[in-house]
Order: sequence, then C-alpha cells, then structure tokens
Amino acid sequence: MNLPEKATIIEVGPRDGFQFEKKIIPTEFKLRIINGLLDAGIRNIQVTSFVNPAIVPQMGDAEELINLLPKNKDAVFSCLVLNEKGLQRAENAGIKHVEISISASDTHSRKNSGMSFETAFAGARKMIRFGKSRKMNIRAGIQCAFGCAYEGNISIERVTQTAKIFAESGADIIAVSDTAGMANPVSVKNVIEHLIPVICNLPAVLHLHDTRGLGLANVFAALECGINHFDTALAGMGGCPFVPGASGNISTEDTVNMMESMNIKTGIEIHKLAACSLMLETFFNKKFPGKIHRLYSGNKYD
Amino acid sequence: MNLPEKATIIEVGPRDGFQFEKKIIPTEFKLRIINGLLDAGIRNIQVTSFVNPAIVPQMGDAEELINLLPKNKDAVFSCLVLNEKGLQRAENAGIKHVEISISASDTHSRKNSGMSFETAFAGARKMIRFGKSRKMNIRAGIQCAFGCAYEGNISIERVTQTAKIFAESGADIIAVSDTAGMANPVSVKNVIEHLIPVICNLPAVLHLHDTRGLGLANVFAALECGINHFDTALAGMGGCPFVPGASGNISTEDTVNMMESMNIKTGIEIHKLAACSLMLETFFNKKFPGKIHRLYSGNKYD
Repeated sequence: MNLPEKATIIEVGPRDGFQFEKKIIPTEFKLRIINGLLDAGIRNIQVTSFVNPAIVPQMGDAEELINLLPKNKDAVFSCLVLNEKGLQRAENAGIKHVEISISASDTHSRKNSGMSFETAFAGARKMIRFGKSRKMNIRAGIQCAFGCAYEGNISIERVTQTAKIFAESGADIIAVSDTAGMANPVSVKNVIEHLIPVICNLPAVLHLHDTRGLGLANVFAALECGINHFDTALAGMGGCPFVPGASGNISTEDTVNMMESMNIKTGIEIHKLAACSLMLETFFNKKFPGKIHRLYSGNKYD
Repeated sequence: MNLPEKATIIEVGPRDGFQFEKKIIPTEFKLRIINGLLDAGIRNIQVTSFVNPAIVPQMGDAEELINLLPKNKDAVFSCLVLNEKGLQRAENAGIKHVEISISASDTHSRKNSGMSFETAFAGARKMIRFGKSRKMNIRAGIQCAFGCAYEGNISIERVTQTAKIFAESGADIIAVSDTAGMANPVSVKNVIEHLIPVICNLPAVLHLHDTRGLGLANVFAALECGINHFDTALAGMGGCPFVPGASGNISTEDTVNMMESMNIKTGIEIHKLAACSLMLETFFNKKFPGKIHRLYSGNKYD
C-alpha cells in the first residue's frame, strides 16, 4: 500500500456548511469558528461565497467577514464565486484565492445556475483568465463529477475534458465534487485515474459528500490513488440539495482522525476541531452527523 | 482493482442491535423484522443470543423466538453463545449455527466475561469441540481484533494465533471484530493479510462498528483483500460499550448500497431493508445512524 505521507484539509464548513443553515449566523460567531479552526492547525479555509445575498442571506456578510479575518500569514482564506460580479467583489475585498465551479451535468447546471453546461463552461474559462490577469489563485471546480441526481451517470470524458481545459486556461488547482453523494470507491478511483494524466501536474482536490455514508470510503480510495487534498466540513455540516435531511460534507475531524490513524500527517489537532463542532451544535441546537466530535463531548474548548 | 464478485451479508441487528436497546421488544416485532429481512433477500441472520436473561433481558425470549422462526430452507439463523450452558440451550432449541466469541484483549476479556484471555480461549476450544461433536456449525469470533479501548494496540500475532487454533480445533468460520471501532483501512488490510494464510482456507467474516465513521472505509479495504463476508445491522443499530452514544454496527443497507454500486452482488433489495429500518425507527421513536434508509423515508413497507 502506497499512501501519501501527508494530506491537506480544506475546511469548507463556513461556506458549504453554513449556507445550508437557516438560522442566520452573526459574523462574530463565524470568526470564532474560523479562529478555532486556525488554532486547531487548519491552514486552508473557504470562508464565504460572493453570491446574491437575497438568495443566500447567510453569506450576506462576505465583505465584512473578510475584513475581520485574522491576519495569519500562513493561512489561506478562499471564497467561492459564481460569476464575474462575484470575482470582482472578491478582488475588491482583497481575496487572493477564489474557487469557480461549474457542473458537469447539463441538467444540474441549468437548474442550479440557469446556464447550459456550454455557457457555464465558457463563462468559467473567461473567469479563469480574468482572475489570472489579476494575479489571483484560481481553483476550478467540477460539480456532479461522479453522477447527477437528474442525469444519473456522468461521462468521465466530460469531467476530464473540462478539467483539462481548466488546467490549460490557467487554473491553479482542480477540484472534483461529488455534489449528489453518488460516488463510490470504484468510481472515485476510475475518475481520478483518468483525471490525473490530463491536468498538467496541477493538484487535484476531492470534494465529497456523505449522503450515502460512503464519504470516508471514498477518501481512502482517493488516498490509494495518491490524492491528498480534501474538502471537509466541521462536524459534517452541510446537506444534499437533492435529498432533504441527508448528511452533508465529509466531517473534518472524522477525516483527520482516519488519516492520522493511518499515519498520514495533517498537522491538525482533533480535540480542538471537536470543540469547535460542539460549539456549532450548541449554537444551532442540533446534532451534526460527524462521529468523532461526539467522543469529545465531555471536553470544553478554551 | 480486484474486488469480489459477490458478498454475503450477515444481519446481526436482532442480536447486536437489539441488545443495546432498553425498550423491551415483543417477540412478535422481532419476527416481523426477521421476516422483512428475509423478504429483502438476506439469508444469514444472527437472531438472538443465549445469555443470562437477568443480565440481558432483551434476549430473554431466545427459545420462544427460535421456535417461531419461519421455516425458510435457505435461511441460516444463528445465535451467539457465551458458554457451555448457552451452547446446550442452543442445541436444545434446535439451532445448528452458533457463534462463540472471545476477546483478544486480556483486560477486555476480564471486564466483559470475568475470565482471563487464556481461560476464555481454553473454554472456547472446548466449546468448539463440543459443538462439532453435536454436528453444529461453529463460527469462532475474536473481539477487539483491531485494538482495545483499555489496552490500545492488540498484537496481530495474538489475533492470528487465536484464529489459527480456532481453525485447527474445528471451527467452520472465523470472525474478527472491531469491537471498539478502532480499526482503520490500513489496520484492516494488515490484520487480514496476516489472518488469511493461517486459517486453513476457512471463510473469514469481518464484524465492524462505525464508532469513528470508518465502517465502510474498512469494508472497502477488506473487499480489496478479498474478504466478502460482513456482519451488519439494519439502520446501523447497536452501540459501543466504551463510548456512550456512539454509532453502532455498520448499517446493512449502507453496506449493501456500497457493494451494489460497485457491482458486487448481494442478492438484497435495498428498499425493503430501508422499509425495515424505518419500522425500527418508528418502534424505538428515534433515528439510527445509517444513511440510506433515510433516502427512502417517503416509502411504505407492505
């Protein structure tokens, strides 16, 4: 077995987790969680998205939040942007790392963004060029890379061709997302083995959801293929747009625990993550689906 | 990748799941679940255990339940027995398939059974010989095979030597259990690779708990090693004796879904399992940790 020696965890809870919550989160509480994540050793955090606050009110404080972020020199704070307006807002806010993202499924693309795959793809390439002209670091993401709730299977060629052109257009990192939680370890290996050769040696990030309980099995399959960048969310926050009440992103602390138990170094202290997750559960007054933080429920974070 | 073409699911919910529940389950309801499992295509069910009803009242109806089991000729109903008295009760009840089980951890053995590892091991060998003299099919299990909440690491040699002697003593199948939910995909592969060569070509069953969310990742690692017999429990029933409130056994329907999505045949209909799990949640008035049954929560079982 040839597993990576270390892995990079990209915490997406403040964006992909919080956006699923109806209770509006004060900017101060978001900052408390972000500081807790930094204290636990996380160095990559997707902190918010530049979207229409009328549609996603939870992200309405994007500029204010970014302005108040701690000035850690070794922390990478990134944002999701959906269009050129969002990209411009990110630049104005001083954000250097942005993610753009389109869906490999034409049906999902039309329902989610109002654009066909081809239109969204052309827009994404334009955004990559714009961002690179502003010296931004661009992560280019492909949603529904492992299947679509509307279309079922998604062709690997669609995914790899999209990724290839993103890489050739100047993207700095490629992300493939299991938006609908339909990946399994075999399909993960299959997609990755086709993806890696075409993305010009760029790093690839895997963004997994635990909708069907396969999240960590898929992480292990990806690790076996040499992937060592993963999006995760504290306590397994988030959800599935297609399955009401389903589990969300893979849990940060569960993923870190798996990696550390297999001697893959993350630089992250699990008990500090667990304390953050327990704070979230207190704030939202509900239980999130992650497992590990529950093992620390007697601990206090200070 | 060389995965098995088919897998055998051994449902242990009626024993390992129900024993964790305080609400006493009427025999009639147990039978309803067992019939639902059979209807879904499950052919191996651990239906109860012969234990002291003063200690485990939930299993107090063992003889009555067995007497009322459906007479499916192709179904294998098995029971857990802890000692010779239990083995005798199983024989009297007409049960042909029994599991005996000891802990690889001396500390866990003393706390759980009041016997040292050596005493329990000698007793188990005696039970295997007794059972074989009665033409019973004996599954010999090793608890804490992947770590112990009290002792930490458990030596692989302890596990493999125990399994080897069980096999040589006449056991028909060997089970290794992650009692404390401490296994990870690397340790699963490591134990299995050492176990297989010493158990005289007997089948090996993996009994996993999802305490830390690694259950299905561990299943995948085991499948990669050629293991294709797994204990599971409907809806992920059960718990961890060391972690109050922790997840239980790996979920039957989540495991079946993973296998079928990877084209490993189980012969099991997931929607029928999900319906059984939803019946359980109604009966116990709580949510179990499995994922897949929730995707079917609009369905009714009839």
